[in-house]
Amino acid sequence: MPTISGIRIDSLAINTIRTLSMDAVQKANSGHPGTPMALAPVTYAVWQHALRYDPSHPMWPARDRFVLSCGHASMLLYSILHLAGVQAVDNSGHELDRPSISLDDIKNFRQLHSPCAGHPEHGEAAGIEMTTGPLGQGVATSVGMAMAAKWFAARYDRPGFELFDYDVYVLCSDGDLMEGVGCEAASVAGHLKLSNLCWIYDDNRITIEGRTDLAFSEDVAKRFEGLGWNTIRVDDANDLGALQAALQSFRQCTDRPTLIVVRSIIGYGAPNKADSHDAHGAPLGEEEIRLTKRAYGWPEDEHFLVPDGVREHFAEGVGQRGRQLRAAWCERFSQYEQAHPELAAQLKTLWARKLPDGWDTSLPEFPADGKGLASRVSSGQALNAAARSIPWLIGGSADLAPSNNTMLKFDDAGHFGAGNYGGRNLHFGVREHSMASICNGLALSGLRPYGGTFFVFTDYMRPAMRLSALMHQPVLYVLTHDSIGLGEDGPTHQPVEHLAACRSIPNLLVFRPGDANEVSECYRAILAINDRPSALVLTRQNLPTLDRAKFSPASGVAGGGYVLIDTEHATPQVILIGTGSELELCVAAWRRLADEHIAARVVSMPCCELFDEQDQVYRDRVLPPDVTARVAVEAGIRQGWDRYIGTRGLFVGMDSFGASAPYQQLYKQFGITVDAVVKAAKSLL
Amino acid sequence: MPTISGIRIDSLAINTIRTLSMDAVQKANSGHPGTPMALAPVTYAVWQHALRYDPSHPMWPARDRFVLSCGHASMLLYSILHLAGVQAVDNSGHELDRPSISLDDIKNFRQLHSPCAGHPEHGEAAGIEMTTGPLGQGVATSVGMAMAAKWFAARYDRPGFELFDYDVYVLCSDGDLMEGVGCEAASVAGHLKLSNLCWIYDDNRITIEGRTDLAFSEDVAKRFEGLGWNTIRVDDANDLGALQAALQSFRQCTDRPTLIVVRSIIGYGAPNKADSHDAHGAPLGEEEIRLTKRAYGWPEDEHFLVPDGVREHFAEGVGQRGRQLRAAWCERFSQYEQAHPELAAQLKTLWARKLPDGWDTSLPEFPADGKGLASRVSSGQALNAAARSIPWLIGGSADLAPSNNTMLKFDDAGHFGAGNYGGRNLHFGVREHSMASICNGLALSGLRPYGGTFFVFTDYMRPAMRLSALMHQPVLYVLTHDSIGLGEDGPTHQPVEHLAACRSIPNLLVFRPGDANEVSECYRAILAINDRPSALVLTRQNLPTLDRAKFSPASGVAGGGYVLIDTEHATPQVILIGTGSELELCVAAWRRLADEHIAARVVSMPCCELFDEQDQVYRDRVLPPDVTARVAVEAGIRQGWDRYIGTRGLFVGMDSFGASAPYQQLYKQFGITVDAVVKAAKSLL
Repeated sequence: MPTISGIRIDSLAINTIRTLSMDAVQKANSGHPGTPMALAPVTYAVWQHALRYDPSHPMWPARDRFVLSCGHASMLLYSILHLAGVQAVDNSGHELDRPSISLDDIKNFRQLHSPCAGHPEHGEAAGIEMTTGPLGQGVATSVGMAMAAKWFAARYDRPGFELFDYDVYVLCSDGDLMEGVGCEAASVAGHLKLSNLCWIYDDNRITIEGRTDLAFSEDVAKRFEGLGWNTIRVDDANDLGALQAALQSFRQCTDRPTLIVVRSIIGYGAPNKADSHDAHGAPLGEEEIRLTKRAYGWPEDEHFLVPDGVREHFAEGVGQRGRQLRAAWCERFSQYEQAHPELAAQLKTLWARKLPDGWDTSLPEFPADGKGLASRVSSGQALNAAARSIPWLIGGSADLAPSNNTMLKFDDAGHFGAGNYGGRNLHFGVREHSMASICNGLALSGLRPYGGTFFVFTDYMRPAMRLSALMHQPVLYVLTHDSIGLGEDGPTHQPVEHLAACRSIPNLLVFRPGDANEVSECYRAILAINDRPSALVLTRQNLPTLDRAKFSPASGVAGGGYVLIDTEHATPQVILIGTGSELELCVAAWRRLADEHIAARVVSMPCCELFDEQDQVYRDRVLPPDVTARVAVEAGIRQGWDRYIGTRGLFVGMDSFGASAPYQQLYKQFGITVDAVVKAAKSLL
Repeated sequence: MPTISGIRIDSLAINTIRTLSMDAVQKANSGHPGTPMALAPVTYAVWQHALRYDPSHPMWPARDRFVLSCGHASMLLYSILHLAGVQAVDNSGHELDRPSISLDDIKNFRQLHSPCAGHPEHGEAAGIEMTTGPLGQGVATSVGMAMAAKWFAARYDRPGFELFDYDVYVLCSDGDLMEGVGCEAASVAGHLKLSNLCWIYDDNRITIEGRTDLAFSEDVAKRFEGLGWNTIRVDDANDLGALQAALQSFRQCTDRPTLIVVRSIIGYGAPNKADSHDAHGAPLGEEEIRLTKRAYGWPEDEHFLVPDGVREHFAEGVGQRGRQLRAAWCERFSQYEQAHPELAAQLKTLWARKLPDGWDTSLPEFPADGKGLASRVSSGQALNAAARSIPWLIGGSADLAPSNNTMLKFDDAGHFGAGNYGGRNLHFGVREHSMASICNGLALSGLRPYGGTFFVFTDYMRPAMRLSALMHQPVLYVLTHDSIGLGEDGPTHQPVEHLAACRSIPNLLVFRPGDANEVSECYRAILAINDRPSALVLTRQNLPTLDRAKFSPASGVAGGGYVLIDTEHATPQVILIGTGSELELCVAAWRRLADEHIAARVVSMPCCELFDEQDQVYRDRVLPPDVTARVAVEAGIRQGWDRYIGTRGLFVGMDSFGASAPYQQLYKQFGITVDAVVKAAKSLL
């Protein structure tokens, strides 16, 4: 090991991470110095000795992933990205001739427009594999990344062409392991025997409220052994030899995921604040930093110092290893491209976040049918059609596949499992939250994932849905049993507030199609969008398939809202706006009004967000401002509808929890009926 | 053991539960027969041999609790409540002279107005200790019930007066143990060594998608041992001897919670559907029911048969045991009342869901102060004042107490833990979801619980918050760091959609006070309400304390919204509506408009729900319908505000995720400024 001024270069590199972190937090006067100080050697060991990562090509598809699940320790990530020389990329993933994180960026930690946000934000800089901060999300999402690696290998590797054998490394904290989603995900990973997944648990015995023994006294290793994991203990986070041995042991374990429990000291080296909550979430203070630097043998008055030789050291370690591995991989991929042009073309398409040409031509069209079918059923058909055309559309349900109709039923779709990593049907178990996190991990890996559950259980996975939106990942949430229309299961299972609650999430598209053809059009719209998640909200009960020869085509879905049926008059007297299962009530009310010579228009509004994004001319054509007699009908709460119906408008829907009974009775009980719509419309004239 | 027609009475009782369940599901043509058939013997063993429960006094405070966490097996609960002769109670908990669940109620399973809803709904019938169905909630809530028992004992038992030693029994399913919230709660229970808690796990190896080995292969017992639990295995759910021994072993274990893993067969006895998913969520069908009854030795053509002797059998078992225990307890309580009148009076007050007289006189008043203080800080003061007056106000935070200001700091508040069950400061760890579930369990036990976290993390606990609302439990959620105003932590930590998302939940009151005195008034309003949960949404940053000599008193909070500052003119030209930290922007804008001789009114709207509940006269006085120039200001999304600002109105707030930077810069960046409010107001004139 070379030395500089008598100090071993590895020690120098580690202390560079520590001091950059301390300095950045101090300058920002805000942030979390203690964990970067504790985990600098762990990060060093992973990057320098294990990670197969080419800093000059951070989007290399076969790179090992490094996820900082304890996102509050963000300076750890920014420091290593800077020191390892990770390069910036543009929006298409092409490398730029500048560092992903510059020293100036670090000096602007937590300031407006710096890529060094308080918590790592995916998209702000290359090398930030995902957004972390909300605890449990990093570990849970990493399971999706590890599943993706296994899936790619099973689907695309060919004899002599091992393209996908990458590993996923995660640093995580007490909080990650206390959060339920972390346990769910660990159970999935153990069940699936994801041997390419390594969680490194920072066992520092400190939480914000005090020592962990205040609230957390379990035997973590034993719990993980129960979950089917390989567990390894490292007694001192500063013991590089032990860390390397543990990482080696992970790579040698081929039948289980690995948890490395690393005993660390938060704020390591700070004479007055180490091993205490004081080192967690606030700057150490100038004086303590000075004393800490003295303890490290560091120049006390230097700030943001990167000693000569440190960057070079990483370049010779992770840099050189990654460059060589990637070069060999690129060579291999060229040969693969010749041997298996079709597979290679698929990979290049998905890496570009595109879909196969003509993927949507097979989407089903449904004939008019008064009896119709549940939108969960038409969804199952549309999903299967799309999946046949898009080989990397994969997903499943949180143990409700037969109810959600999320099963891919065609030949060779297969079931993903420890014995069959190429299966496209995933089985998440009753674990909605980790399902959504895993879908994020799959999407971040280039796949087009979907996850199904009952709509009411979006409550269980909102933190991960929010991250889909924040990270611009095109996850499709298939959400059935979308209202009191599910009937007898009662209020615990009946979403009432969930349309409003989902529509409130920025950057999430919420679709609630009104018949089978709108379902097909929703799939066309959703899958074509590659930078936003979608929630597809579907019925349990049958919906008539509307006669599109009489009414407008379902392609209007693309506009979010469209005129389904118009009056012959130039201007309608009243506009009825409906979504999903309530669209048929609007259509029936329109008929009744027409019989009474009242000129009504029916607007179908399957996606408010897309409608809002249309230009004013379009929106005004659908909802003319001078027609203020408007009735919105939706078996959910009113919140959000005033925007469309205005001050005069009326709303027919729910204003309480539901009840347990056959659904037809519930619609009557809660006054969501054709009569009610007609009455509301007439009251406005 | 007596027999009837040669059949042992216990077997007869168990098969009565099974056949009632099968018949009810069949008649409803909807429901879940398989688990009641499997777990009938377990339910029998718990009720008949263990539960200390007086069916004629189902609200007896010291009763053992029985929670059916696998709520889809609701017929199990309705059957046992019926057979054990549990009596109905009125809204005040007084016994009525009729059964809680009649045979007719069971015949009306899953029909409108029957108390036998698809999933057990708390409040529909005595004996339904909580609403279950959303998986994981029952087990997690039971931890709160067990904590309450320990707390009551520590606080109110006196030498010679053991009043509270009750146990909590829970039946749970694979789903309960797969859900993250179940693992969080199990970790809490193990940490707290809740020896009065017994979960009985129905290990039936069947999930909706198929055998559990599709998605769930962990060693559950080992996981629970890692979590600090006593684990016991029963190999056959029909082995009453083994069940009794296991229950005995639970009662003898004094230092840990107990998990009994019971191997069962779903749909036990059904010749064609047992041990398969087909027995889970649909009626068995008339023919299969006939064959099953034959297998039980049951009259095949009888429906809803309760053989003679069965009700009497339960009356002699659980009924007699419970009556005697309760009688002894009542006697003991009478003596306690004489020996410790003050403590007894406290208990009677809390059992009546009342508060001590004059509890609110100590709530702080804050002098006008331009610098002011963060509402999380004034909340900490008001909370401490209220808690001093209300001995059974207890709670804590999900490891953010120092940030949420939820710590009770007065002498003898204490910290709840395995060594000190009388502590009033709870430490939930980084487990928001189980925190909320546990708070539900505490509230169901008569306590007034609160739970704190960052507002953005309400996403992690929505399923339990929804249950607070559905069960009418007065849980207080203390939610700090309520907007981009938290600054540097960035978008993952900045709630944007959460005001809308929380306001969408029926029956939940959302309070966002605008200064310290509004905080105090929020506490006055919230704690006086005993049948709804509240979310108290608070800032990280300082808010000026308004000069109430100049402006209206903060007692206006009671109306949900009130006129804070009016114009001297009869009618304002424009109304500015603000909440929380944006109220000061409205006040500043009002000053600027006044300088320009524009007559503005400022309305503070800390609680939309309470405002909506005021009569039309009041609402029209605050927001006169003919003043359509209105500007709402809130650092969240617009959703929900159109209702108050109308078609013409303008909104100053957020329409995207936030960013990481000092908060003053963020307010400018996102255009939430006095300038913007003034400009919006003037544009409407």
